[in-house]
Amino acid sequence: MSHAPTAALSARHNTIRQALAAQDLDVLVVTSLPNVLYLTNFTGSAAIALLTGDRLIFVTDFRYVTTIADAMDTPHRCPDLELAKVEGAYDTTLAGLLGSMAGTRVGFEAAHLTVSRLNYLSKTLEASAGNPPQLVATEGIVEASRAVKDAFEIATLRDAARRLSAVARELPTEIRRGRTEREIARSIEQRLHDAGFTKPAFDTIVASGPNAALPHSKPGERRLSEGDLVVLDFGGVYDSYCVDLTRTVAVGTAGQRAREVYQAVLEAHDQAVAHVAPGRSRFAIDAAARDTLTRYGLAEAFGHGTGHGLGIEVHEDPRITRPRAGEEQTDASAVASGMVFTIEPGAYLPGWGGVRIEDDVLVTEGGVEVLTDVPTALIET
Amino acid sequence: MSHAPTAALSARHNTIRQALAAQDLDVLVVTSLPNVLYLTNFTGSAAIALLTGDRLIFVTDFRYVTTIADAMDTPHRCPDLELAKVEGAYDTTLAGLLGSMAGTRVGFEAAHLTVSRLNYLSKTLEASAGNPPQLVATEGIVEASRAVKDAFEIATLRDAARRLSAVARELPTEIRRGRTEREIARSIEQRLHDAGFTKPAFDTIVASGPNAALPHSKPGERRLSEGDLVVLDFGGVYDSYCVDLTRTVAVGTAGQRAREVYQAVLEAHDQAVAHVAPGRSRFAIDAAARDTLTRYGLAEAFGHGTGHGLGIEVHEDPRITRPRAGEEQTDASAVASGMVFTIEPGAYLPGWGGVRIEDDVLVTEGGVEVLTDVPTALIET
Repeated sequence: MSHAPTAALSARHNTIRQALAAQDLDVLVVTSLPNVLYLTNFTGSAAIALLTGDRLIFVTDFRYVTTIADAMDTPHRCPDLELAKVEGAYDTTLAGLLGSMAGTRVGFEAAHLTVSRLNYLSKTLEASAGNPPQLVATEGIVEASRAVKDAFEIATLRDAARRLSAVARELPTEIRRGRTEREIARSIEQRLHDAGFTKPAFDTIVASGPNAALPHSKPGERRLSEGDLVVLDFGGVYDSYCVDLTRTVAVGTAGQRAREVYQAVLEAHDQAVAHVAPGRSRFAIDAAARDTLTRYGLAEAFGHGTGHGLGIEVHEDPRITRPRAGEEQTDASAVASGMVFTIEPGAYLPGWGGVRIEDDVLVTEGGVEVLTDVPTALIET
Repeated sequence: MSHAPTAALSARHNTIRQALAAQDLDVLVVTSLPNVLYLTNFTGSAAIALLTGDRLIFVTDFRYVTTIADAMDTPHRCPDLELAKVEGAYDTTLAGLLGSMAGTRVGFEAAHLTVSRLNYLSKTLEASAGNPPQLVATEGIVEASRAVKDAFEIATLRDAARRLSAVARELPTEIRRGRTEREIARSIEQRLHDAGFTKPAFDTIVASGPNAALPHSKPGERRLSEGDLVVLDFGGVYDSYCVDLTRTVAVGTAGQRAREVYQAVLEAHDQAVAHVAPGRSRFAIDAAARDTLTRYGLAEAFGHGTGHGLGIEVHEDPRITRPRAGEEQTDASAVASGMVFTIEPGAYLPGWGGVRIEDDVLVTEGGVEVLTDVPTALIET
């Protein structure tokens, strides 16, 4: 179980209930596990939550019944939780529960429910007698709430970022000639454990020399040698919340080109951070980084977005990217106080290598708080 | 990239093409990443494969273009791969490719495609001019092929099981009074790394004393003490393939009840293993374990299935379980030579603790090969 206080869960339920009322829905079937965790503190591997105007029905199997019961006496219990135990298949139990809600409008999470599952539910409900509930596709109801962190989440992410920063400050001691990428990745993951993280938030990236030109390179048997730039990208899960950080370190003295590319990426990073404030468009924050790299002739070398939201998932809303075809720079693109996301511009030059610099930021009433705290100047080991 | 030889990939493509022909489909859109890996050796985090009667179109983004190009010169290259690079969103690229296949019948993976994605594809294709392709829900086409391992997969799983067994044989040295569950879990995960695994196949379980009554307990700060039974369940990913093993160890001398429960679970394990042979129903294999535990009065204490398939995913077909309502013991329930799955009966007694014993088996022409090789007698440390 995660540790959001009961009052925080109540507030989250209220937010979702308002969204349901606005869409004339009686029930939301929450099948996304990160969304279930957000609403209930449940960290197990299987559950469904049904939220109505005044009930929260929690569907899980025998493996987790004791866990749920144990949480009932804690300050982190999910309010008003009614347990429905699965005997057999989850969707059989779900269809049974929905079958008893005749005539209601039932929202489901279209971005998470598969076509197979929807077909099964539709058929089963239609086959039942009377006035079956109507299944309605919804998009991003819980995700919209999750994008703006509450006080518990901000405190957790701040603590997690502090711990991740402590790991990152040890990077210069990890970067030694002759070590393999894989050895360094394992050592960083050990440090994440030692710093109190439950697990890495994703597979640690240690990309050296030409490998650094691949933004998602897997650590291999390549040994570090003089003049390499090494991109180190790692993160951890702390009390169910993810943080994420990247630094690029030079082995020995960096060459002229390496210094130039590093300086351009650092300036892009700083420009993007400086643009973060409530009401600013996420597209404008991306543009602050991208335009800087363009000025240095590195537009083509920066193929990904400038950042992504952090929370229960390591990639969530808001996405700090270019607008896609058809996406307007509307009010909906504005970031808000309480949002937490990465700023991580990079430049990747095939055959040569790459640079990425990443920090985690919180949008505050006054502008921005950089949650991670690690020097950004190029380190030469 | 994974390391299946090109000829193995060709054989897999042929199997899928035969299934497509049988269902009168011109194209299969493979969106499940484990299925994409199976067909292409691609181990990255985002891709779609389109398999037609004579083409394989591989959709990925800039992050992986170099990876794909590099694999082209290896004995593990995907045959006939045509790269389609995503600029923007994956489903935009996918809709564009399908839009050029006028009049075809296009299968999609209904168990993996979300309702949102299907709605987007349907709308986009309908809006395009001419004779749009018809989208057809399919179920388990690639999964059926994956359930029966080829020679490369069997060799990989055998090697992985050998490595996992070496880790398991060190368990007695891990189980010491005063150590916490969490310390032991970390130590096991370090041993997995040292044994050559890319990463744990799932979060390692170390459940001691009463915690062992929870089949999916998370390792915590509880310290081992005299008389505890400790359930240790761990696995690793080796060249993209998952293996999984559980042993239950006593701290000091086990009590009478612990010995009785252990003996019952061990007998259930042995009975189930002895029942494995080509043509046997997976339900009958489950019953061999379940009936044994029932004889010992432990039917209620065994709440999960007897096993699950192993491969690119740690839980895949075949499922060694009771038949669900409506599931018949038909020929489709028979296991076949080349299938690899776990045998892992357990007994969980709330407030007291639990026992689980798990090995990985391969169905052979002659019957069964137990891939893991670790003594099953109760260890008292």
